[in-house]
Amino acid sequence: VRRITVLLGPRSYDVIVGQGLLDQAGSLLPETPGTRRVVILTDSGVGEIWGARAEAALKTRGEIVAVQVASGEASKVLAVAEQVMDRMVSEKVGRSDLLVTLGGGMVSDLGGFVASVYHRGIRVAHLPTSLLGQVDAAVGGKTGVNLGGGKNLAGTYHQPIAVIADTETLATLPEREFTSGLAEVIKCGLALEPSLLDLLEPAAPAVAAREPEVLAELVAACVRIKAGVVAQDEFDQDRRAMLNYGHTLGHALEAESGFGVLHGEAIAVGMVASAHLAADSGLLDEGEVRRHISLLERFRLPVTASFDPEAVLERILLDKKRRGEGRWVLLKGLGHPVVVPVSEEAALTAIQKVLV
Amino acid sequence: VRRITVLLGPRSYDVIVGQGLLDQAGSLLPETPGTRRVVILTDSGVGEIWGARAEAALKTRGEIVAVQVASGEASKVLAVAEQVMDRMVSEKVGRSDLLVTLGGGMVSDLGGFVASVYHRGIRVAHLPTSLLGQVDAAVGGKTGVNLGGGKNLAGTYHQPIAVIADTETLATLPEREFTSGLAEVIKCGLALEPSLLDLLEPAAPAVAAREPEVLAELVAACVRIKAGVVAQDEFDQDRRAMLNYGHTLGHALEAESGFGVLHGEAIAVGMVASAHLAADSGLLDEGEVRRHISLLERFRLPVTASFDPEAVLERILLDKKRRGEGRWVLLKGLGHPVVVPVSEEAALTAIQKVLV
Repeated sequence: VRRITVLLGPRSYDVIVGQGLLDQAGSLLPETPGTRRVVILTDSGVGEIWGARAEAALKTRGEIVAVQVASGEASKVLAVAEQVMDRMVSEKVGRSDLLVTLGGGMVSDLGGFVASVYHRGIRVAHLPTSLLGQVDAAVGGKTGVNLGGGKNLAGTYHQPIAVIADTETLATLPEREFTSGLAEVIKCGLALEPSLLDLLEPAAPAVAAREPEVLAELVAACVRIKAGVVAQDEFDQDRRAMLNYGHTLGHALEAESGFGVLHGEAIAVGMVASAHLAADSGLLDEGEVRRHISLLERFRLPVTASFDPEAVLERILLDKKRRGEGRWVLLKGLGHPVVVPVSEEAALTAIQKVLV
Repeated sequence: VRRITVLLGPRSYDVIVGQGLLDQAGSLLPETPGTRRVVILTDSGVGEIWGARAEAALKTRGEIVAVQVASGEASKVLAVAEQVMDRMVSEKVGRSDLLVTLGGGMVSDLGGFVASVYHRGIRVAHLPTSLLGQVDAAVGGKTGVNLGGGKNLAGTYHQPIAVIADTETLATLPEREFTSGLAEVIKCGLALEPSLLDLLEPAAPAVAAREPEVLAELVAACVRIKAGVVAQDEFDQDRRAMLNYGHTLGHALEAESGFGVLHGEAIAVGMVASAHLAADSGLLDEGEVRRHISLLERFRLPVTASFDPEAVLERILLDKKRRGEGRWVLLKGLGHPVVVPVSEEAALTAIQKVLV
């Protein structure tokens, strides 16, 4: 069992990573004085597979209130958050009670949001069951729901009291979703901790076989990296932007595809475009660009996509304007992210290299 | 002009109280680097009276995005918050922009909530135009929307960057709403600062005439009291409960009436019941109970109401159970609030004295 502490003063908490932890969730969570009810929020897909075990593990912590939402991004909206809260009101869930999310990033984003606003904030713990959830979404306290105009446009910062990542639950992930999660692992290596790549490359067969101990090592390494960044910049003022390597183009591709392209697939292509951009301005050499591509291909992630470059660029410019960000995360050598302004022309040139 | 600082470390801000301040809002607000757009959120009633002046005052601070919701408590829900945010997305409101609320407690609660979650939090300033808003709702950072099961069951803590209370705007309030606001002023005096009562009693004719300078003095006094409490307990862990004098029965009466009884009317009756309760346990003497009644009557507030005591008690018990609170705020002498357990029998006896 690996335990990583996210250091945030009074909001510090542990991320616990290992094989078979779901059944121990009741004893692994920290004390929660006053808790009488434990809401377990999950989606229909995950609930069917892991719901009963989570309920059995957590019933020592309070009366279980099981709440299920439909699987898929369409549930990550205010109307569903309201349905969940209405149910919590009718079950008399109070300020001292605990909400536990069981599922992927959609569930931890939605459940984190609900926990942050219900009675102006109750405790939340995450049991992420997807690779993306374990390495990224469940750690760091960002919550979110989507608005008509875009993903995660409404949300809060609400740190969990603990995150328990059981790498056994990754065994049942659909292949494409598992592979998509690997893109965030590769991102951590490329952008922040190149030594992770040395761990990752030889482990490809074990990763493909989803060996829980190997996955635990990778997840723990990513969480350690993310925890370090979050500890320096809880409220996303500067440093945390470095976690968005590949995300500028990635978000645009996700949106342009109507979310038919998964998050990890989109940022994989986004990282390749960013590598080309960096090479064009002399920040990376061609060998480093090739390493991006070979790593992603080795883990069966896409390095190109089929979209109209002009339309995608338009979407990026709009998004950046709306968010008040004008710049991209590029690498000045592997593991050294910098935030730099990029001209429309330079962006288009790089985008054209990955959109075929 | 009176300026009260709410001391909350990096979240400190000023509440500025005076006559005719609305026109100066653009220069009174602190600097907001990066702001290009200023969203003015108001309701249809207030917007018609004060909207144009607020827009004129704030246009020096950015491009105005005027957003209006329907007047009334029915707008304080997640669906309306989402409509407001969808509009903000379409107007390209970004992380560095500013939201200004113009209106009563409904508008500042809703707008504060929207500002706290839009892009995970943007700046908000309040221009409260109701007495309740100026002395209570707009100060302290609590935001909220209603769920089907009750008022303010979803919300956040999100401190404004400033509150500007122009007592001239109180001139156009409907009589009943103005009177209702006075109940919170009286509450501040009875529960926390009896010297305020010595200011208030002789001022009754000037208050009834809504003389802006007299109102400014009262509003500033109440804000000073509330600011002191909030500074000690931003996140409502203990001391802030003292602000809820009269609210246990008050909330139940509001709900039982389907919100036909206004908040201030309900807490007026609630304070009388709490005074009886305190007298029954020897915490207050009969003269202090009479002072409650005579003060409230002098300002034309109700001291009794017509509801079934058993039904109201049932509602209180349910509400306390749901919120995980078991106790009432009573006074051990004027200005000395204490939180004490109250038996069902004692509560019923006191409630019966005010429900006729």
